[in-house]
Amino acid sequence: MDFLDILLKKRQGKKLTKQEMDYFVSGVTNETIPDYQISAFLMAVYFQSLDEEETAYLTTAMANSGELFDLSCVPGFKADKHSTGGVSDTTTLILAPLVASTGVNVVKMSGRGLGFSGGTLDKLEAIPHFSIDVTQQQAIQWAKKSHIVIMGQSKNLTPADQKLYALRDVTATVESLPLIASSIMSKKIAAGADGIVLDVKCGSGAFMKTLEDAQRLGSIMAAMGRHVGKKITVVISSMAQPLGNYIGNSLEVIEAIETLKGNVKGDLLTVSITLGAHMLLLAEKVSSEEEGKALLLKQIENGQGLAKFKELLQQQGGDCNVIEDKTLLPISPCKVCLLAQASGYVQSMDTACIGRASQQTGAGRKQKTDSIDFGAGIILKKRIGHKVEKGEVLAEIYSASLERSQNALAILQNAIVIGKDCPPQPPLLLDIITA
Amino acid sequence: MDFLDILLKKRQGKKLTKQEMDYFVSGVTNETIPDYQISAFLMAVYFQSLDEEETAYLTTAMANSGELFDLSCVPGFKADKHSTGGVSDTTTLILAPLVASTGVNVVKMSGRGLGFSGGTLDKLEAIPHFSIDVTQQQAIQWAKKSHIVIMGQSKNLTPADQKLYALRDVTATVESLPLIASSIMSKKIAAGADGIVLDVKCGSGAFMKTLEDAQRLGSIMAAMGRHVGKKITVVISSMAQPLGNYIGNSLEVIEAIETLKGNVKGDLLTVSITLGAHMLLLAEKVSSEEEGKALLLKQIENGQGLAKFKELLQQQGGDCNVIEDKTLLPISPCKVCLLAQASGYVQSMDTACIGRASQQTGAGRKQKTDSIDFGAGIILKKRIGHKVEKGEVLAEIYSASLERSQNALAILQNAIVIGKDCPPQPPLLLDIITA
Repeated sequence: MDFLDILLKKRQGKKLTKQEMDYFVSGVTNETIPDYQISAFLMAVYFQSLDEEETAYLTTAMANSGELFDLSCVPGFKADKHSTGGVSDTTTLILAPLVASTGVNVVKMSGRGLGFSGGTLDKLEAIPHFSIDVTQQQAIQWAKKSHIVIMGQSKNLTPADQKLYALRDVTATVESLPLIASSIMSKKIAAGADGIVLDVKCGSGAFMKTLEDAQRLGSIMAAMGRHVGKKITVVISSMAQPLGNYIGNSLEVIEAIETLKGNVKGDLLTVSITLGAHMLLLAEKVSSEEEGKALLLKQIENGQGLAKFKELLQQQGGDCNVIEDKTLLPISPCKVCLLAQASGYVQSMDTACIGRASQQTGAGRKQKTDSIDFGAGIILKKRIGHKVEKGEVLAEIYSASLERSQNALAILQNAIVIGKDCPPQPPLLLDIITA
Repeated sequence: MDFLDILLKKRQGKKLTKQEMDYFVSGVTNETIPDYQISAFLMAVYFQSLDEEETAYLTTAMANSGELFDLSCVPGFKADKHSTGGVSDTTTLILAPLVASTGVNVVKMSGRGLGFSGGTLDKLEAIPHFSIDVTQQQAIQWAKKSHIVIMGQSKNLTPADQKLYALRDVTATVESLPLIASSIMSKKIAAGADGIVLDVKCGSGAFMKTLEDAQRLGSIMAAMGRHVGKKITVVISSMAQPLGNYIGNSLEVIEAIETLKGNVKGDLLTVSITLGAHMLLLAEKVSSEEEGKALLLKQIENGQGLAKFKELLQQQGGDCNVIEDKTLLPISPCKVCLLAQASGYVQSMDTACIGRASQQTGAGRKQKTDSIDFGAGIILKKRIGHKVEKGEVLAEIYSASLERSQNALAILQNAIVIGKDCPPQPPLLLDIITA
């Protein structure tokens, strides 16, 4: 087999066989296919796409390209969840302990990520002493005991995906739906998940700008689940505004704890328990979404969700006192407020713009090598439809220096639109796709 | 400027500016843009194409990426010719001396090429002691004296094209018409041509399989001529069968000499004088194609074309005695004949197949590093429409070993179709496009 033939075939829009896709992934992993051929192939895939079967072949081959995280000796269903990424998207910190508290395993490898704020790992590391370095042995032991582990991705997981992901980033081939889908799924399969709930964010602050694109990605993912024998549910949720009101790392941990305490209601809670309910459905712990949501709300009321979160912290070395004393979490000292320039109602938000302002505070990375300021970020005081008076605080900005806070403020100023009439509430949950 | 932005822009089908194309070519030349980004860009260009202006920007930037062969001190028009490549395509050896014998300069950088037989350089090197290594100073001196120089491409000519050509070859992006056009034109511009006649071959044995594709390439080239201020004429000619009857290196030199002597008529002569006539038209030496053809035929009759060929050989060290004694040219010893399996008329030929058989004899390279057997090749005894008797010789195969000749025979056997009725003659000259 010659990779040039495979590349030509895909350029011509022909369907690749399992053998050809295996040959590609093995050549990527072993570095026998040069980068310039891989990137030409990625661009050809961008234009000619991959069908369901090809995407499944690619996904399976990538999942098998490195170590497999073997959780087979952990009894019961292993549910996982992935978000395509949004602003103030703290659902993992809320739903993982809630779902685990019902006895369903949540053994989750999370990422750091670039963007508005850190990834789940960064947020957890904002908690003093919390460790995300977990061996397979520890993960199995903890999963058996507590049903919950949240850890960093092991270095040898899906090396082919790591390589392709890095190349896509620098060759303008990120926005290919089958490549996005196979990248997500290969990691989840290699990490040992039996079922995955995929939270596809849609709107100005999300990777998928339109519902159509989000639905297409969702359909590809759902179809792929059938092909690779994994249960998949796709939830499409809105990024018309940040999901919660706290954006950052420490700040999002605080909002997650308050949510688990039952003190915070709203969109973040709604999406968290919806995603969690679908994880329970995949695990056949409940028989309807409604039943799942009710169970998870009960786990908030009876304190078992919060107790599971405390167990997670204790297990992985984190300081449990943060649950009762949020001052133990770092908050950056330079605070600046965004004030309303007029009275009226919040009409709309430019979520991507709010994300960029958050990144500007130091809460998110621009480049992989950037360090994160755990205490930096933004607290939104108003949401779409809220009434505001001229001069009222719309948002608080926290960062390590006044300059950074001012820079963030300059970006944030244009992100929140105020108008006379009370606008309709934007829909939050847009679609659910099951395999 | 960031190349990733340019790459993304082209992927989205947007038009690139002159500055962006210059940035690309300069990054290719200086190796500041990594190969994986270049190849992704080439694939994006394959799918999104380049318009006339973008192609002109690319061509000009590539032409200027290295040394320019400065022929400005040679008085008069410098006419050049390029063929997209066909089987038994010896036109350069015939038309260059004919055109030069009328006083129009033909200072030609030729290539070696992969494929059925060698390129023009290889054919000339089949002539004992002929040297294709010519300095700019020599070229100018000779051009002033004899109006004819045929030499190898200088190493520093269009380095950006050399790099892109090599990458296209291994990334399935050869078949992009604007990339083909800019590659050809950039070399011709850098080599100092004032006007170029492009011979686009079309048919089973050619790169362009259909007249539509050939016409599209021709139109792009003609349009580009306008943009870069060079005179261009495109002649589209058929590859329904090999152009001449001799395929190889020594063998094609023999056929060229016989044509210059007036002993061989037919398609090879027709195409040679047509292309030559258009070179004379571009040089304003004549005022119609017919006048040009008549002048060139006269140069055959009066022996001035052959005399110019002899002058070329003397000038560049070649053994002139080959003109009178073809046994001085190498002919490989192992001869095998292809015999007709039935009586009838030659219906059609698979020209690509004949080309592969020629390559199998050792007359052509499979890889750049392969050496060529100058004496190897094929002599066709019949053309389309010719009557044949069962057992009659259709072709003679020459190579260095009986095994090679037999292998070539095995390929050649399926290339010539014989049937009952006399078929119509396939058209030879299909279209002419002027800027």
